Amino acid sequence: MDFTLEDISDDEMARRRAVFEPLVASVRELVDAVIRTEVGDEVIAEAQRTVAGVVDSLRAHQMDGAYGVRYTSRMVGMAWGNAAMGMRNALAPPVYSEREGNAVRAEFTLGAAYEGPPGHVHGGVCALVLDQVLGEAAAADTEASYTGTIEFRYRRPTPLGQLVARAEIVERNGRKKTVRGTLSDAGGVTVEAQGLFIVPKSPPAL
Amino acid sequence: MDFTLEDISDDEMARRRAVFEPLVASVRELVDAVIRTEVGDEVIAEAQRTVAGVVDSLRAHQMDGAYGVRYTSRMVGMAWGNAAMGMRNALAPPVYSEREGNAVRAEFTLGAAYEGPPGHVHGGVCALVLDQVLGEAAAADTEASYTGTIEFRYRRPTPLGQLVARAEIVERNGRKKTVRGTLSDAGGVTVEAQGLFIVPKSPPAL
Repeated sequence: MDFTLEDISDDEMARRRAVFEPLVASVRELVDAVIRTEVGDEVIAEAQRTVAGVVDSLRAHQMDGAYGVRYTSRMVGMAWGNAAMGMRNALAPPVYSEREGNAVRAEFTLGAAYEGPPGHVHGGVCALVLDQVLGEAAAADTEASYTGTIEFRYRRPTPLGQLVARAEIVERNGRKKTVRGTLSDAGGVTVEAQGLFIVPKSPPAL
Repeated sequence: MDFTLEDISDDEMARRRAVFEPLVASVRELVDAVIRTEVGDEVIAEAQRTVAGVVDSLRAHQMDGAYGVRYTSRMVGMAWGNAAMGMRNALAPPVYSEREGNAVRAEFTLGAAYEGPPGHVHGGVCALVLDQVLGEAAAADTEASYTGTIEFRYRRPTPLGQLVARAEIVERNGRKKTVRGTLSDAGGVTVEAQGLFIVPKSPPAL
């Protein structure tokens, strides 16, 4: 598993964000609109032709394979393809975490594209966002680790809308860290998670 | 949680599929292309303006809220907004399951949009696809149930590419069903899953 060194300045990173963020936001809107539209067949067909044209224009020059995980020499990470929080990934809600004491906290909104049961978040999407936040909490002691096991307990259905995920390390035992977290709506916890994270014997190559 | 009756014929269902499937396929391509493109800033800006225009055209008429889960009077389900397998949801890989004896099996390809570690599937995406397939396996005895707990054991990283998920009920005890499943690449199992599914005292309203 290869991490990539791409040594760009903070200014260049900010410039790339400014270029891509509006496009990614519009693609996220597009995904939502395709699910919820009630326009006629001809408008749908025209939309398809237009989107296919945009795809061609973007694919004129593209990297082989996936985006990967890139770091600058100052160890600033660019996981811009990440399925949960990648800046260039329109599938990602996105889930951006911040530190809150020893814990990690992320606030985000899940709309129509994240549905499972009617009007509620897909159980697997609850797992996706919690996996991301527990993984970041596991790394919050600055020692890289990978997920060994993770368990989710569904207390009640999670409604679509604004949500908060939190997680923190609750136990450390040799190379094993236990991390606990929750997903909550305004009414309290909807899903509990507990994960066992393993510190590898040698750190990942950069 | 309300399921919706939308009593359309098989022909009308097939017609709607034929209208939407090409658009959803192109939007899926677009998500991938936005992650992997290396074109210049002006092409990105032009793509954003074009996509925003398509969004406007689709939003001219749209439903309130999410798509929901709809059934015909013959109990044919249309979970077309579903995050894992919705026909109109470009976020869904999609994961389409089929019966294989008592088990449920789904084969699908995960590309750049599903990345976590470099070149590998996000752990939370593994959880998303397994949650879907375990849920379908739990329903394969035709009795509706909801997920109580689900645990994932990551044996090794799952490479991006063609994958298979399988699941089946392994135990039934009163209103509780235990379901086990796996995610595999060509080299064998990468993730194991076990879930406890609960049959509600009264079935969901339709």
